[in-house]
Amino acid sequence: MDDRKLLNVVMDIVGRENCLDDCAVLPCGDRVMVATTDMLHRTTDFVAGMTDWQIGWMSAAVTLSDIASMGAAPAYLLIAVGLDDWQPLGGVMKGAQDCCKTFGAGIIGGDIDHHDELTVVTTGLGLVESRYLVRRTGAKPGDLVGITGTPGQAQAHLDGFTGFEKALFEPQPRVAEGGLLGRSGASAMMDDSDGIALSLYDLSSVNDCGFSIESEKIPRPEGVPAESSRELALYGGGDYELIFTLPPGRHPVPGLSYSVIGTVTAERAVLVDGKPLERRGYQHTWE
Amino acid sequence: MDDRKLLNVVMDIVGRENCLDDCAVLPCGDRVMVATTDMLHRTTDFVAGMTDWQIGWMSAAVTLSDIASMGAAPAYLLIAVGLDDWQPLGGVMKGAQDCCKTFGAGIIGGDIDHHDELTVVTTGLGLVESRYLVRRTGAKPGDLVGITGTPGQAQAHLDGFTGFEKALFEPQPRVAEGGLLGRSGASAMMDDSDGIALSLYDLSSVNDCGFSIESEKIPRPEGVPAESSRELALYGGGDYELIFTLPPGRHPVPGLSYSVIGTVTAERAVLVDGKPLERRGYQHTWE
Repeated sequence: MDDRKLLNVVMDIVGRENCLDDCAVLPCGDRVMVATTDMLHRTTDFVAGMTDWQIGWMSAAVTLSDIASMGAAPAYLLIAVGLDDWQPLGGVMKGAQDCCKTFGAGIIGGDIDHHDELTVVTTGLGLVESRYLVRRTGAKPGDLVGITGTPGQAQAHLDGFTGFEKALFEPQPRVAEGGLLGRSGASAMMDDSDGIALSLYDLSSVNDCGFSIESEKIPRPEGVPAESSRELALYGGGDYELIFTLPPGRHPVPGLSYSVIGTVTAERAVLVDGKPLERRGYQHTWE
Repeated sequence: MDDRKLLNVVMDIVGRENCLDDCAVLPCGDRVMVATTDMLHRTTDFVAGMTDWQIGWMSAAVTLSDIASMGAAPAYLLIAVGLDDWQPLGGVMKGAQDCCKTFGAGIIGGDIDHHDELTVVTTGLGLVESRYLVRRTGAKPGDLVGITGTPGQAQAHLDGFTGFEKALFEPQPRVAEGGLLGRSGASAMMDDSDGIALSLYDLSSVNDCGFSIESEKIPRPEGVPAESSRELALYGGGDYELIFTLPPGRHPVPGLSYSVIGTVTAERAVLVDGKPLERRGYQHTWE
């Protein structure tokens, strides 16, 4: 049982329409509010070597990234912290606060719980004019597939390559980029936190189209040998880049640094270098 | 170190003003939105004998109660579930969904995580006209102190008295009551989830006043001997009744069932039957 199959259990109960995007979308005056929640904890997410401050930063960043991927501006964060030991709390809160401040949001509430394991759940609320909202749906055949930054760097650290610690420990949500993409007509978007491959399959599952990308067009982590960097770029998790589709007439987006890595196809296959892309990446599994 | 002391660590970082109420308050068009998050988990909160459905129900109910305590109507719930075993997920989600439907909210999003221990974090969003919003602050000397329902029943089950299982396992957030109290001029309000005593001290810490209550005016769990029921009523945790203050001219509130248990005093003491009330109840502690 993996988390994408388990999501079907949830969809059957709460409705498929509530499980399609990185955030839920709510009416809020003359704008829309987007809302998302993420659970992180010591064993799986806070790897050895992270400081309390970095744990707090990461916990906020993953949620702000979901907001950015809708084209919205982060506004508010709630944070629930489960503690086996009270002492990390100050560092965790400071890290979360610093991340929020950096990206324009404020911490407005939370909960503290006694827990066997350090567990942090952040809920983020963002705001956007409804015409600039970007969902996972909306990709059209002929659109370009783009990605911000250099994917694979977080996984590079996990795989033992040096120089990538900050990419994993202090992810930078693409908040300015997401807003600009929304205002520039991106047709579909999500973040690539589980890797490019799973992200493209997720996009394929909600759009009536497929994707064809070229691996050589994806920027590679510097100093990693080619045979490893392709694997990292396609299947590595822990990045918070934005992967998006863009009508060709909207390319290039002024002021935005990104790579065009492929196109949206009419056929519902997901291809890399002309062959089927393996459907694997970062996933939780249960026995 | 207890959770109220630990809250000072948080206040120093995120600001005291973000830690005073059961919910944060945000502008949202012509109304205000209230937002709150709660972390529950197997060891501490989901006691032996609870079904998966009841675990989901309770997880939603505690958050809806925080919304009710602001006088707001629950609208949306996000739910993050950490699972050691995937099989409870369906029951947990169904319980949360049923609780939301009962009280007018919808589940709009969530997260699934692999965790060592079943952990559920719910984030609730509610809406209210700003003139009907009720905060913890606002109590004035001379106001009456009121409480809904019969407190102490959840603790009665924990203490081994029979007949109170549902009070603990399936708490009923006082949503209709909270809304009515907001529209009827309640001056301050919170839920009594950590017991009446700690709730009054929490209210005292943010209001420039004190409280004097009479224990015999608090409804007691039926069939519990008097020497136990006073203890349960004052110090028992796990209830989700609303404790509130009400200007005397607003009493009685038509259509609302509640008990007047005391008055707000100018002196900042918290008294029961004329003597200082012990400052104890349900609290997390860390070594």
